[in-house]
Amino acid sequence: MSVDQAAKRDIPDATVARLPGYLRALGQLTAQDVLSVSSEELAHSAGVSSAKLRKDLSHLGSYGVRGVGYDVAHLTYQISRALGLTHDWPVVIVGMGNLGRALASYGGFATKGFKVVALLDRDRALAGERLDELTIQPMDALTAVVTPGEACIGVIATPAASAQDVADLLSAAGVTSILNFAATAIQVPEGVHMRKVDLSTELQILAFHEQQRSGAVSDDLLEEIG
Amino acid sequence: MSVDQAAKRDIPDATVARLPGYLRALGQLTAQDVLSVSSEELAHSAGVSSAKLRKDLSHLGSYGVRGVGYDVAHLTYQISRALGLTHDWPVVIVGMGNLGRALASYGGFATKGFKVVALLDRDRALAGERLDELTIQPMDALTAVVTPGEACIGVIATPAASAQDVADLLSAAGVTSILNFAATAIQVPEGVHMRKVDLSTELQILAFHEQQRSGAVSDDLLEEIG
Repeated sequence: MSVDQAAKRDIPDATVARLPGYLRALGQLTAQDVLSVSSEELAHSAGVSSAKLRKDLSHLGSYGVRGVGYDVAHLTYQISRALGLTHDWPVVIVGMGNLGRALASYGGFATKGFKVVALLDRDRALAGERLDELTIQPMDALTAVVTPGEACIGVIATPAASAQDVADLLSAAGVTSILNFAATAIQVPEGVHMRKVDLSTELQILAFHEQQRSGAVSDDLLEEIG
Repeated sequence: MSVDQAAKRDIPDATVARLPGYLRALGQLTAQDVLSVSSEELAHSAGVSSAKLRKDLSHLGSYGVRGVGYDVAHLTYQISRALGLTHDWPVVIVGMGNLGRALASYGGFATKGFKVVALLDRDRALAGERLDELTIQPMDALTAVVTPGEACIGVIATPAASAQDVADLLSAAGVTSILNFAATAIQVPEGVHMRKVDLSTELQILAFHEQQRSGAVSDDLLEEIG
């Protein structure tokens, strides 16, 4: 194993989960033509403490220069490389309902190292319909799209009832990473990496802050009254 | 300020961000008729260490019983209450393209303490169209839907170019929590809590793991050859 590989493997999962946030903050700085950034500024944009940011970036072998900070372009490259985004990952989206179509046309993927290569739906009536650059294909097309042994990410955007069937088909075709948007738990064989996206998670965090605020208002009233 | 309020305010942001994951894991246990769960099992389902789980739950005043663990129903209630999900939060969705429609019909919201109360779009041609239980309304309807001073969450599902305008309209109408799905940064006035959802974040984390795997395969090959 090369030193580089060993270093990559030592990045803790919690750090990996924060890297996309740093990349997003760096993207905004790049858009504003900012060339370098202090750990404090970058940490603030990403919503973490600067100590945590420095620790996270040290796992990438990236250390800011005292009084100068981090070079925006170089750090962007280092994080992109760590995440494996310096080349395009092929993405197959299954389920061409509203969510699948929204994901298919989501501008954020293309600029972030992903290329949607196929749109699939088991409803044969949809086959042949064009969406931007791609044509919706029936599920049989999966084996032609995925080459076992080559990296490919499968996105499940079907109703909950179909999600497990689709996961089985994706796994059988050789897809080793699955992102599940369907509102149900699915099982995948060993060797397949699966993440579940729950669109209500962010709403729940917002609700917490909204409640804190409501609590604060009531308290102020109580204090005024009391 | 009551002791209860003081306790609520002391929950660290990082803990708040993990609570939805615990709630999701508890929901799966409830579906399997599991009555109690050890901190190790629950931590494993939620993908955190059991030490972190116990620390997080201690902020809610919730401690497992040695040898028994946590009561699934009671812990579900405690986390729901901390997140403010024991009553329904009204949600207004703006932008009735594919993403807005997907969110409008997302089953996960209703079961998790949110109620979509209005669907808005600035395209007047869409006004009057029914989606499930609701009818799409023009943007003017916003002031009738939102009561300043009462909690309401606004969801922006418009194209990037309209997102700032919509955020301004939502803030002006009295919405104090905004969830932005548009692929652009927006500014909100002080007092408005905003979170941005980047649908590519989870893909980036998956890509990292896929790359680790590819790296591992190449290394094994190199070792075999070498």
